Amino acid sequence: MIQQLAAGIDIGGTNTAYGLVDREGNILMKDTITTGNFSTAEEFVSAMEIVIRKALSSLGSSYSLAGIGIGAPNGNYYKGTIEFPPNLKWKGITPLAKYFEEKFDVKTVLTNDANAGAIGEMLFGGAKNMKDFIYITLGTGLGSGIVVNGELVYGHDGFAGELGHVVMFPDGRVCGCGRYGCLEAYCSATGIKRTYIEKRWRKEKMNDGLKDIHTKDIYDKAVAGDEDALSAFEYTGEILGFALANSVLYTSPEAIFLFGGVALAGDFIFKPTIASFEKYLYPIFKGKIKILSSKLMENEAAVLGAASLIWKELDKKSVSSNPILKSVL
Amino acid sequence: MIQQLAAGIDIGGTNTAYGLVDREGNILMKDTITTGNFSTAEEFVSAMEIVIRKALSSLGSSYSLAGIGIGAPNGNYYKGTIEFPPNLKWKGITPLAKYFEEKFDVKTVLTNDANAGAIGEMLFGGAKNMKDFIYITLGTGLGSGIVVNGELVYGHDGFAGELGHVVMFPDGRVCGCGRYGCLEAYCSATGIKRTYIEKRWRKEKMNDGLKDIHTKDIYDKAVAGDEDALSAFEYTGEILGFALANSVLYTSPEAIFLFGGVALAGDFIFKPTIASFEKYLYPIFKGKIKILSSKLMENEAAVLGAASLIWKELDKKSVSSNPILKSVL
Repeated sequence: MIQQLAAGIDIGGTNTAYGLVDREGNILMKDTITTGNFSTAEEFVSAMEIVIRKALSSLGSSYSLAGIGIGAPNGNYYKGTIEFPPNLKWKGITPLAKYFEEKFDVKTVLTNDANAGAIGEMLFGGAKNMKDFIYITLGTGLGSGIVVNGELVYGHDGFAGELGHVVMFPDGRVCGCGRYGCLEAYCSATGIKRTYIEKRWRKEKMNDGLKDIHTKDIYDKAVAGDEDALSAFEYTGEILGFALANSVLYTSPEAIFLFGGVALAGDFIFKPTIASFEKYLYPIFKGKIKILSSKLMENEAAVLGAASLIWKELDKKSVSSNPILKSVL
Repeated sequence: MIQQLAAGIDIGGTNTAYGLVDREGNILMKDTITTGNFSTAEEFVSAMEIVIRKALSSLGSSYSLAGIGIGAPNGNYYKGTIEFPPNLKWKGITPLAKYFEEKFDVKTVLTNDANAGAIGEMLFGGAKNMKDFIYITLGTGLGSGIVVNGELVYGHDGFAGELGHVVMFPDGRVCGCGRYGCLEAYCSATGIKRTYIEKRWRKEKMNDGLKDIHTKDIYDKAVAGDEDALSAFEYTGEILGFALANSVLYTSPEAIFLFGGVALAGDFIFKPTIASFEKYLYPIFKGKIKILSSKLMENEAAVLGAASLIWKELDKKSVSSNPILKSVL
């Protein structure tokens, strides 16, 4: 029997990760290519065709491609386009899903990486039996995917779920988006780094050599008991918990999942986040909502999330493409 | 032919409005009873049975009751219960939908009044062709209903969409919920009154006779050019616009509808709200999202919204109770 596989592609500014994933979430192969090597999207898609077809044939003749799922910055689910991505060479609006469908003749679904991650968490991670949850990625920025009643919220234009740009402090830190005080300017790898540098500067007017510090270095310092590193995590968690408490008022989720570099700091980030979350929570929600660590592996989540877009889509399709159903709907 | 009607019941702390509504949103009769006259929910339901049956029979024999929709404070859609309502005599958890179903033997659906209003707006008001919108009631408090992909967001526990309790300022005004700086402490009839009184006090240490001032009085003063009244509307709109810009990041709605006493102030509230909204909006949403006045009449919306719960529910049921559909789903 031929087994179906989904290709999962996660496009980042530096690298693109891709892999082949079965219906149970097993990754049969994965690899990366350098996104920046391709100055046009067409060249990129041609290269992807070669590597995916090669990977597929290397698995033998018992597999076929069910579809392609893509997580991409500024990905628009409805249109299958990438629109004005800040960190890619392909400017303007790129109809990437169409390009892939033309090459492979299979269904291609595209959305942003955090939305893909949320669906990955729902199909293969900690949200398996949940219908309402929020998924937060704490990477360079803060991404999010919101699931309501078992479906991802795409919104009117396909761009829903941008919690990283909720303005927490109208006169706060400048954000990459050009506005001030956005959540991701505080709660992200970049945010915690800014907090740490600010703390060092306030204390000893010291910021030499801190420009290139990483979240991992701040984590190591926290483990070693460094006061400024510990307080940088505290501060980040306080703001994140406050923001998440507000977010509960919109969709009343069963749980909120944290994923990504900052979430890997464990108790250093979870403890202050949960304390602040419970403090700011509206009374009817107190004690009801879990803040959990993503159950997906850091090095697999991107490919798994992207591939899960296809499995989720085919689940829907198995209802709506049924001829009996179609005739009565 | 027998025509089906839905009973719409809107339970408030003071009065309960009820009426009979057809599938096209025509209100065939409506009236009110005094909620406070009934010390138990059972007595209330018995009284409602009498008035609704009387109303129905007075319309003649060509009508039958399709179901009952109820908008109520702290109404839980999933359980059909009212849970710990602050302004009703019935304490604890009341299984009100069950009581009505026992008396009338028809489907009864219950949720909070703002959610009912949102569905009313979707079936019979300005959101007729919209799948994604937010509905805000600016009454004594600030209520909200969020619609995503054509369905109301109830959330994990039935209590989603409480935007009135988003904390805007952690050290802000005390709110009725016991916390500080909630949106409804600023943007509601009570909120604008507090703002006006604060402005008078800061200016002239004058607050005599202001305790009982109404939003309508502040509106009249604004019309007459009173500086403090005008600036109270400005301030309310600035905060509301800021909060609504943040709310767009969750569900990316096509429009946001404002309903209720404060919304009736027209340009006095809409102008500063829209200006602040556009100022704080995340760039990809700028110029895309309409802030609109509810198209439902102030004195009809509560009954129409409650009744529309039934029409919405029967729309769903006509799919899921279909035997052919059931066999394939």
